[in-house]
Amino acid sequence: MTATQVGTWPISFTDVESARTRIGRYLAPSPLRSYPLLDAATGLQLLVKHENQQPTGSFKVRNGLSFMTALDADARRRGVVAASTGNHGQGIAYGAALLGVSATICVPRGNNPEKNAAIRGWGAAIVEEGRDYDESVLTMQRIARDEGRVVAHSTNDPRIIAGAGTMTLEIVEQAGEPAVDAIVLAVGGGSQAVGALTVARALAPDLEIYGVQAEGAAAQYDSWQARERRTTARADTFAEGVATRSTYDLTFAALLEGLAGFVTLTDAEIAEGVRLILSTTHNLVEGAGAMGVMGAMKLRDRLAGRRVAVAFCGGNLDTTVLRRILNGEL
Amino acid sequence: MTATQVGTWPISFTDVESARTRIGRYLAPSPLRSYPLLDAATGLQLLVKHENQQPTGSFKVRNGLSFMTALDADARRRGVVAASTGNHGQGIAYGAALLGVSATICVPRGNNPEKNAAIRGWGAAIVEEGRDYDESVLTMQRIARDEGRVVAHSTNDPRIIAGAGTMTLEIVEQAGEPAVDAIVLAVGGGSQAVGALTVARALAPDLEIYGVQAEGAAAQYDSWQARERRTTARADTFAEGVATRSTYDLTFAALLEGLAGFVTLTDAEIAEGVRLILSTTHNLVEGAGAMGVMGAMKLRDRLAGRRVAVAFCGGNLDTTVLRRILNGEL
Repeated sequence: MTATQVGTWPISFTDVESARTRIGRYLAPSPLRSYPLLDAATGLQLLVKHENQQPTGSFKVRNGLSFMTALDADARRRGVVAASTGNHGQGIAYGAALLGVSATICVPRGNNPEKNAAIRGWGAAIVEEGRDYDESVLTMQRIARDEGRVVAHSTNDPRIIAGAGTMTLEIVEQAGEPAVDAIVLAVGGGSQAVGALTVARALAPDLEIYGVQAEGAAAQYDSWQARERRTTARADTFAEGVATRSTYDLTFAALLEGLAGFVTLTDAEIAEGVRLILSTTHNLVEGAGAMGVMGAMKLRDRLAGRRVAVAFCGGNLDTTVLRRILNGEL
Repeated sequence: MTATQVGTWPISFTDVESARTRIGRYLAPSPLRSYPLLDAATGLQLLVKHENQQPTGSFKVRNGLSFMTALDADARRRGVVAASTGNHGQGIAYGAALLGVSATICVPRGNNPEKNAAIRGWGAAIVEEGRDYDESVLTMQRIARDEGRVVAHSTNDPRIIAGAGTMTLEIVEQAGEPAVDAIVLAVGGGSQAVGALTVARALAPDLEIYGVQAEGAAAQYDSWQARERRTTARADTFAEGVATRSTYDLTFAALLEGLAGFVTLTDAEIAEGVRLILSTTHNLVEGAGAMGVMGAMKLRDRLAGRRVAVAFCGGNLDTTVLRRILNGEL
């Protein structure tokens, strides 16, 4: 490993191990399972990581708890503020409630109402402002300045990325032998993918990590292909968990260096994934939660015959969107 | 306790403990969680037992594994046969696959097709015959005679009831202090309720167990009210997990003696429960899986202010039925 590579890497494997120790008091490992019907439908051998079964319904509870448990007493007293389309906000709100810390979550206008309700349910305040996630970040920064709150960025924070990395640490251990060959992950900010790459570098250098984005919100995909950072004017996808318009300081270089491949999916393909997962496993996943399976299908030529893990990374699908998906309107 | 009472009780607490030891190698405890939004919507303090997150999507995996792991070598060689509307069949098929035993599952004609597919997915053979569960039992008995298979009855077997009891053992332990005051359970054959009563008698004599049936399949409810065994001509409910038309030899006397109360729900109420659970917790439950929450609401006068556990006992809702529920057609 060269000094340059070390320089581009935002966290160490030790950071992931430390995060696991901190959050282990609050979270049991999520199941890793296989489903014969899903394998038959996809033509793949899939190991499913059940982040949809987490207490807040997504892997972001790892990030939130990793962040909150790393705060010192002064930071806990000041309280935190985050920007989110919902799952990061729930993770932070859940962690804040467990640790008795005040939390404010900034969401875009028109955000998934059931995610907003859940954030409030965990006791956090909601500020609904801006047209998308990237604009909510500006709201978060203003509130941090005005109120002295600690920023819990959903991506640009080593504690967040290390929390996300604990998922892959569990996958590698639970898969046992034969080792898992590849993991296909939805990419929003990139915490999960960079966490996975960090674990792979330390424990399983042959393990390939693939990224998946929505065609309508493909800033990271475009940037990865172009090998330079790009932004997009809009993020058009019903999968709000990955509706980002830019790359991120702490994850882009690592994604560029580490990902074995990157694909995109249309909203129609993502919706098809939600239906497929429902009928073959009876797990409810949100848009981002279906992207591992559908991304793996798109990569079938490279992944056939290999042992592939995917994450049902979130299950917080709004009922209205679910109805549209089942009625074939998405 | 009188000799008469001992005579009516089908299993001992030791049977439940033994079942837990046998199945513990294959199943981790399922989560017990609370949801602020669900509590706000119901006006209750609910602890949710997540049997919908089991590997086969229902608590019946406990029963199936308890049964299969208790078989001796000769019985394993002969193979098993079961009658089921799907979840018991999946539990038996899953356990049979893990232990390398041949399994045949008898389901009624027109049974939930996704449950049938899942049973086949775990490697069991399906025989689709008879108009409902009780007629599938006749098919099971014929196949047992003809093929020498061991009968895995979904209710009338101490190993099955003991397996179901492991759920309540986990609830009591996970709830900790203050102790859980009541558990509200959907009743099909009654294995879950009698398992719960067995655990309560041993560990928590003040813990009340309530039963819930569908109004269109209320044989056990009618019998409990009349204090004598009755059958019904039909079982009309979309909640096929509780679509039974009779009482059962091994559970009726215990239900009669032990249940603190019994209520029924219309299909419209059950469907409302599925929608409520989706929007407040983003967990997919099948009809029977919504009956604990909706039954508890019906018992609100007795349960308000107390610590109440309910089971999301199954999540294997057919996609077609889910669509009808979301479209308000159920």
